Amino acid sequence: MKSQFTWQSVVRSYEIDVQGIVNNAHYLNYFEHARAQVLLSCGIDVGNWHHQGLDLVIVHIDMAIKTSLRANQQFVVHTNINKQGKLRLVCEQHIIRTGDDALIAKAKNTVVCVSRERGKPVFPDALNALLDNNTRQETINV
Amino acid sequence: MKSQFTWQSVVRSYEIDVQGIVNNAHYLNYFEHARAQVLLSCGIDVGNWHHQGLDLVIVHIDMAIKTSLRANQQFVVHTNINKQGKLRLVCEQHIIRTGDDALIAKAKNTVVCVSRERGKPVFPDALNALLDNNTRQETINV
Amino acid sequence: MKSQFTWQSVVRSYEIDVQGIVNNAHYLNYFEHARAQVLLSCGIDVGNWHHQGLDLVIVHIDMAIKTSLRANQQFVVHTNINKQGKLRLVCEQHIIRTGDDALIAKAKNTVVCVSRERGKPVFPDALNALLDNNTRQETINV
Amino acid sequence: MKSQFTWQSVVRSYEIDVQGIVNNAHYLNYFEHARAQVLLSCGIDVGNWHHQGLDLVIVHIDMAIKTSLRANQQFVVHTNINKQGKLRLVCEQHIIRTGDDALIAKAKNTVVCVSRERGKPVFPDALNALLDNNTRQETINV
Repeated sequence: MKSQFTWQSVVRSYEIDVQGIVNNAHYLNYFEHARAQVLLSCGIDVGNWHHQGLDLVIVHIDMAIKTSLRANQQFVVHTNINKQGKLRLVCEQHIIRTGDDALIAKAKNTVVCVSRERGKPVFPDALNALLDNNTRQETINV
Repeated sequence: MKSQFTWQSVVRSYEIDVQGIVNNAHYLNYFEHARAQVLLSCGIDVGNWHHQGLDLVIVHIDMAIKTSLRANQQFVVHTNINKQGKLRLVCEQHIIRTGDDALIAKAKNTVVCVSRERGKPVFPDALNALLDNNTRQETINV
Repeated sequence: MKSQFTWQSVVRSYEIDVQGIVNNAHYLNYFEHARAQVLLSCGIDVGNWHHQGLDLVIVHIDMAIKTSLRANQQFVVHTNINKQGKLRLVCEQHIIRTGDDALIAKAKNTVVCVSRERGKPVFPDALNALLDNNTRQETINV
Repeated sequence: MKSQFTWQSVVRSYEIDVQGIVNNAHYLNYFEHARAQVLLSCGIDVGNWHHQGLDLVIVHIDMAIKTSLRANQQFVVHTNINKQGKLRLVCEQHIIRTGDDALIAKAKNTVVCVSRERGKPVFPDALNALLDNNTRQETINV
């Protein structure tokens, strides 16, 4: 996919399970870190928001795993963020292996921002910065 | 749901994130461990199968997160396994908080068994033992 | 060792690495969870203390790993807590495999309580409850 | 310290605990990944060695934690490897925060290579490549 944001990294040895492949829970970790980097590039720090009473939480994960990442392989996580309804951020995220460009996993991760004081979802203006699909394209390498 | 298999445990301190809640990737860990316990109760050891050339792998995860588990809370994972088509095991798995019976997360996790030699999915007879819905009901506490 | 506190559990499938053994970082997780259970049994909740400005932090770990835990094995973590000097809690912690009583790992984990306001270690009275070596002996199973 | 090998990275959001700091078990993960990168740069793949009957295992960890890494901070892991006796590799490893050069953690991690067939430690010649202290200096960024 043509993506707004990409994050590149490499499989770490402790992420490998007894079958020699990355345990699928780590794919959620990769997606979370990639989203955190996107948020940060828009000036949004999840920890600070928490201390201000706003929690960004995952409400739904839909992930298809196509093939496996193995030890030492490099990969790129692509992230596109769109608004769904008035309150939801839908993050389309793909993990692509570097080298053969194999699609490893493809996910649609839905995030909402919950105000702890009001006990319900809100949509702070700052989140709109994430949606600037046409004008932004960034690569984050860490 | 009325479940075939249940696994009970308690949130561990290192599973809590900066927002004070269990990171969603740990829910996948809970589901995986619950499935491994079910498999084991049917005489299937994932590690042994791997060494015999058979890998049980997740191909799809669909998880809705309804509310959050917090430090020290107890929970039960319910698991029902059904066959879909000729090759897929669909594991319906719920995490329920003990005490208030709140539904934390609800997932449909699809597993296939891949033969490394044949390079494609297979369905060994032993997997049928997982499908005995009407006759079995077990509680595993660890 | 004759221990003040014990916590029993079983290896979870996702804790196993490519060598078929529990990755050593998980032993630190087990130790942390065992300490959290001890603290909790004395009325100390690490999360609450954090929100009151007090952080319980590890300052030193000395762990010898004698043999390995494998998939599905049960184990017990023994914990004894003693005071060292005026500010340090030294937690002697052993992981013992159930069945053959093999010593898996043996650690001396040093914890201090830091007051964020004062920017230095403190020793709140409540911590003395952890030191009642001769009068308490508890088993926590979760 | 003047180090043979360095590995640079950044704290990932899911590594942060309820106190807002990196959980100490992740420091062991960082050290392990840094060692795996060093091994790989010398042509040693831990997974392959396992399949050839040789397991590289940690037998002792001595880690002092001086201060904490927080969300989004960058760090460098420095690794120096020396032989101790006939069979042990002692890995001196430091985590240094980028920016203020603060020493986060300082460890002496001892590794042995176990032959599963012989049931005891061995020292394959290939490990000598790790010890070329004076001639090698590498930076690995991933």
